[in-house]
Amino acid sequence: MIPCAPALRQRLVRVAQELDAPDLLIRGARVWSPFTGETEAGDVAICGDRIARVGPWAGPVGAGTAILDAAGLVAVPGYIEPHTHPWPFANPLALAEAAACRGTTCLVYDDLLLHLALGVEGLEALTRTVSEAAPGHVFWTARMASQSRFAGEEAVFSREHVARLLAQPQFLATGEMTRWTDFLDPALAPRLLEIGEVARALGKFSDGHTAGASARRLPALAATGMRSCHEAITAGEARDRLGAGLWVLLRNSSLREDLLALLPALAGAGFSDRFTLTTDGAKAHHVAEVGLTDHLLRLALGAGIPAATAYRLATLNAATFLRLDDDLGAIAPGRVAHVNLLTSLTEPTPVLVVARGRLTAREGRLVGPAPSEDFPWAERYRGGDPPIPAWGADAFLLPPGAPSPFPAGRLANAVITREEAIPLTPRGAGQWPADPDAHVLALTDRSGRWRTRGVVLGLAPGLAALATTYTTNAGVLVLGQTPEAMAEALAELRAAGGGVVLEVRGEGWHRFPLPLAGIQLPGGFPGAARAAKAFHGAMEACGYPHSDPNYTLLFFSCDFLPDLRATEAGWLRVKTGEILLPAEGLGADG
Amino acid sequence: MIPCAPALRQRLVRVAQELDAPDLLIRGARVWSPFTGETEAGDVAICGDRIARVGPWAGPVGAGTAILDAAGLVAVPGYIEPHTHPWPFANPLALAEAAACRGTTCLVYDDLLLHLALGVEGLEALTRTVSEAAPGHVFWTARMASQSRFAGEEAVFSREHVARLLAQPQFLATGEMTRWTDFLDPALAPRLLEIGEVARALGKFSDGHTAGASARRLPALAATGMRSCHEAITAGEARDRLGAGLWVLLRNSSLREDLLALLPALAGAGFSDRFTLTTDGAKAHHVAEVGLTDHLLRLALGAGIPAATAYRLATLNAATFLRLDDDLGAIAPGRVAHVNLLTSLTEPTPVLVVARGRLTAREGRLVGPAPSEDFPWAERYRGGDPPIPAWGADAFLLPPGAPSPFPAGRLANAVITREEAIPLTPRGAGQWPADPDAHVLALTDRSGRWRTRGVVLGLAPGLAALATTYTTNAGVLVLGQTPEAMAEALAELRAAGGGVVLEVRGEGWHRFPLPLAGIQLPGGFPGAARAAKAFHGAMEACGYPHSDPNYTLLFFSCDFLPDLRATEAGWLRVKTGEILLPAEGLGADG
Repeated sequence: MIPCAPALRQRLVRVAQELDAPDLLIRGARVWSPFTGETEAGDVAICGDRIARVGPWAGPVGAGTAILDAAGLVAVPGYIEPHTHPWPFANPLALAEAAACRGTTCLVYDDLLLHLALGVEGLEALTRTVSEAAPGHVFWTARMASQSRFAGEEAVFSREHVARLLAQPQFLATGEMTRWTDFLDPALAPRLLEIGEVARALGKFSDGHTAGASARRLPALAATGMRSCHEAITAGEARDRLGAGLWVLLRNSSLREDLLALLPALAGAGFSDRFTLTTDGAKAHHVAEVGLTDHLLRLALGAGIPAATAYRLATLNAATFLRLDDDLGAIAPGRVAHVNLLTSLTEPTPVLVVARGRLTAREGRLVGPAPSEDFPWAERYRGGDPPIPAWGADAFLLPPGAPSPFPAGRLANAVITREEAIPLTPRGAGQWPADPDAHVLALTDRSGRWRTRGVVLGLAPGLAALATTYTTNAGVLVLGQTPEAMAEALAELRAAGGGVVLEVRGEGWHRFPLPLAGIQLPGGFPGAARAAKAFHGAMEACGYPHSDPNYTLLFFSCDFLPDLRATEAGWLRVKTGEILLPAEGLGADG
Repeated sequence: MIPCAPALRQRLVRVAQELDAPDLLIRGARVWSPFTGETEAGDVAICGDRIARVGPWAGPVGAGTAILDAAGLVAVPGYIEPHTHPWPFANPLALAEAAACRGTTCLVYDDLLLHLALGVEGLEALTRTVSEAAPGHVFWTARMASQSRFAGEEAVFSREHVARLLAQPQFLATGEMTRWTDFLDPALAPRLLEIGEVARALGKFSDGHTAGASARRLPALAATGMRSCHEAITAGEARDRLGAGLWVLLRNSSLREDLLALLPALAGAGFSDRFTLTTDGAKAHHVAEVGLTDHLLRLALGAGIPAATAYRLATLNAATFLRLDDDLGAIAPGRVAHVNLLTSLTEPTPVLVVARGRLTAREGRLVGPAPSEDFPWAERYRGGDPPIPAWGADAFLLPPGAPSPFPAGRLANAVITREEAIPLTPRGAGQWPADPDAHVLALTDRSGRWRTRGVVLGLAPGLAALATTYTTNAGVLVLGQTPEAMAEALAELRAAGGGVVLEVRGEGWHRFPLPLAGIQLPGGFPGAARAAKAFHGAMEACGYPHSDPNYTLLFFSCDFLPDLRATEAGWLRVKTGEILLPAEGLGADG
C-alpha cells in the first residue's frame, strides 16, 4: 500500500465535498474511468498527492490552487509498468523520470544486479532513496537467486536478506526465478518456497517466470504460489498461463516484440482483467524513441483492442495485480494523483503528466529539474564497482585440453545460442577458433577466483574485442577475435572503471564508461539514452545483426537460456547441465 | 493470505507433475475456470488442503488416495461471502457449517456484537478458534465504532484494540462504518482515518458502507480509503459506487431482496470484475430454506446473467476483492481446495462440497460431525452475557414530562421508522400511548446506567410484550403494550438468561433463550434455524408484517437509520440529531 497521512485524508474529505479549495485543479478535461470504461466531462480536484474529487468543480478555488487547463484533453490514469529491469545505462531514477515523461508513473523494478553489486544494506538504502526521489512511484522486487548460479548464492539471497528487503515498503514481491527448474528440484526448492511463504506472510507476493514451461510443468510452477508470468511468447502460452491461474503480463520488450502475437489471447478471453502489459526492461534509447508503456498501448490500440480494454491493462488491471488498486490505477477519490492528459484515447503518449499531484512533464519533458541530476550517486553506489582483473593475452587462450571440434554457441537471435561444433587450431600454449569471425569469450565474477572460456559465433564480424562489466553475474566479460585484442579490451575496461569498451576491427576503440556498479550512468536519462544508442550503433558498425546488444552481453552469463552459457562452473550446456569446458581456478591475484 | 507450508508446496509441485499420488482425486468432473470462463473435462488432484493439478490425471494413485467420483458433475470453486454478520441465533461456527453445506466455503464475518460482548481479548480468542474449527475459511472484519454511540466507545474500539485484532491472520479489514457521517465530522474523523491507515500498513483493507450517500458525499467517503460498498439498493447507486472506485457488493439479504434491482448495473457495465455478491447477514431459517450465496447465484442466473459472469462474482471476483486471489476463488494449482460439485451450472447449490481438501458435505449435509457441537462455547463466551436489569412496571411509563403528542416511530418496513405524532394519556405516575396497538420501547446497555424510552407503531398488534438481549448495542430491549407486560417480559428474559421472550396477546409466552452473549445458541445450525423460524413464526402470530424480525429488534438501538431510534442519549431523531426524550440516568442498581 502507499501511505496516506490521515491529515491529508481529512483534507480530501473536505475537498471531495467541495467545501475547501484543492491544491491543483485539472480543469475541463474529459476523464476516462477504468471502472466504467467510459469518458465523462469533469474536473479533477487534487490535494497533496491524492485525488479528492472527479467531476464538474463547483467548490472554491483558493489563492493556493494551481489550475491546469486541460480543455480538449482526455485524462487517463498514469500507466503502470509492473515488471522491469533498471539495468542498462540508465540509472533507476533516470529511467523513472523518462517513464514519467511518457506517462508511466509507476514502475516495478527488479533488484538483481544492484543486489549483487551493493549487497543487501546498500540495496536497501538505494532503493529507498530512489523510490523517494522518483517523480512517480517506484517499487522493487527482491530476487531469491541469481541468474547465474555461484557458490555462496544462498547466503547472498538468504531468507534473512530477502525478508529484510520485503519488510521495506518499496518492495512488493519476490523477484522472478528465471532458473525456475530450481522449484522442481527437491534439494533447491525448500529454500525458495520458504522465502515465498515469508513474502506472503508480509503481505507481499511472488512475481513469476515460467518461460517455456511445458503443460506438465506449468501447474507445478503455479502451485509454488507465484502470482504471474510475463514470459508467454505466443497467444497459446498466454492462455495456458491464464488457465493455470497466473496473471498474464503481455510482454513487448526491445529484445522481443511479442505483443501483436499475444493479443489474440486477450481478445479471445471472456475476461480481460487478469492481463496487463510489460516492457520487461527496454534499451534506454528505445524508451527515448518509441516510449515505454505508451508504446505498448499504441500497439494494442493499433491492433484493434478496444480503448477501454487497452487502457485498463496498463492502469487498473496492473494496480490490482500489484494489490495497489486502492491507491493506483484510476482517477478516483482517494487515489494517488497520477494523471495523463492525452489529445485523444487514440494517442496514448501524454502531452501533460501529473505525477503524485504535481505537473511533472509537458510534451515528453520534465517541467522541473531532474532529481537524478542531484542524486548522491557516488555515495549510494560506493563499493559497488566490480573488480576488473588484469589478465594478459595468454589468459584468453582456450586450453590445450579443450575439445576440438569445440561446442561453440551461435547466436540465433540477441540472446539464444545454438550449439555448433567448430574446429580449433593450435595457438601459443593453447588453441583458438579457426574461424576468424568467431569470438572467444572469457568470464569471471566479482570474486575473481575463476575464469570460464567459451566460443561465440554470429555476434558481430567486425568486433575485434569487447570487455564489459555489464553481465548478469555482475562480473566481467571479455569477447574477442584474438587474445591480444581481448587483453587490450580488458585494459581499456580497467581504465574506464567499468562499462563497455569495444574495438571495431580496423577502426579503433569505443568507450562507454558506466561508473555506477559498472552498469549505469549517473545523471539524467538523456545522457543514458545517447550512450545506449551510441553503443548499439558501434555494435551495428561491427555487423551486430540482432535487436538488443544489452541483452546479448547480459545473458552470456545466465544459466537459464539455451543452448550454451558461461558460468562459474564452466562453459555450460544448459539443457543437460553438462560442463563442456570447466572453469579455470585462479589465485587470489587472478 | 492463507498460509501454506513449504513442505506441502513441495508435495504439490511433485503431484502437479503427476510424479506422486494425490491425497484426494476428484475424478471425471467438468471443471469450470473463472479465468477463462470455460468448462473443460478434467480431474482435480488435491494434496492436503490445496489443489495440485487440474486436468485428466495420468499420474499414480496410491493406497492413501481418496477418489471422489464426480462423473457427470460440474466443478466450480467454493463460493465466497465477503460481508456478513454472524449474529442472530446461529453461532459463527454453526453458520460456517451451514454455509459450507451450501457451497459457501469462505465467509467474512463482522465482529461488532462479539466485540461488545466479549471485549478484545475474548474476541481474539473466539475468532481464532472459530476460524480454525470451521470446515471452510472464516475471516473477520474489525469494527472501529459501534452502531449505537455510547460514552467510552472510543476506548472499546481504540486504535490499539483494532490494531491488535488486525494483526491476527483471521482479520482481513476494518469493519463497515455504518455511522459513516463520522468520517465527515472533523472531530470524529481523525481517529477513524488513523485506524484505516494502521490497517493498510498491516496489509489489511477497509470494508466500506455508504448507505444513502449523496453524489456530493460519496466521493468524500471513497477518499477515506474504504474499499467497497454493499449498500447500493438501486442499479444507479451501484453504478455511482463503481464509478467512485469502490468494489460493489451486490446485496440480497433476508432483510432486503435487492439483487434483481441491482443486476442491471452489472449487465450494463463494460467490466464485471469489480462486482461481487453478499447476503449481508441472513436469518438462519432463510439460509436453511433457500441457501446463502447459492441462492444469490440462482437469482442472478435466473435473471439472465451469463453463467461465467455469475460464478465469477461469487468466486474469483470476491477473492480478488479480499486480496486472497492467490489462495481462493479458483480451481487451479496452488489454490485452497474448495470445490463445489454441481449437477449443472444452472443449479448452483452443490450436491458435493470439498472444503480445505476434504469431502465436507453431501446433498446439503455435513458428511462428518459438526465441529460446532463439540466447540467449547461456554469457555469462549464466558463473561459475555449482558446484565439484565430488574425493572418494575413503573420503569416503563413514559415520564410526565414526555411531549404529548409524542413523536412515535412507525415501522415502514422491517427497520425504517417514520415519525408520527401520537397522543399520550396519563397512566399512574406517568403517561402511556392512547393507541392500544402501540408499543412502548425501553432500552439500556451493558452498563445499566441509563434507560431510554420511546414509542413504536406498526410492529405487531398481537404482541403484548417482548424482551431481548438481541440489540445492536449489546444491551437489553423491552417492548410492550402495557407496563405490566413489559416488566413481566423482562423477568422472563432474566429467567431465560438472555435471548428473546415474547407474549402473544391472549396466548402466552414464547421463549427463545440465546445463552451465548444473549444472541446465539451453542451447537449446530439446525437448532438455530429451527429457533429462528419459531421466533419469526411467533412474531407473525402477533401480526408482525415485515420481512425480518431479527433486524427489527437489532436496529431499534442503532443510530444510522431513519427516523427515530433509541440510544444512550435518549429517543433520537437521527437526521437532526435531536433528542426527543432524554435517557433517564439510573443508580448503580438500575
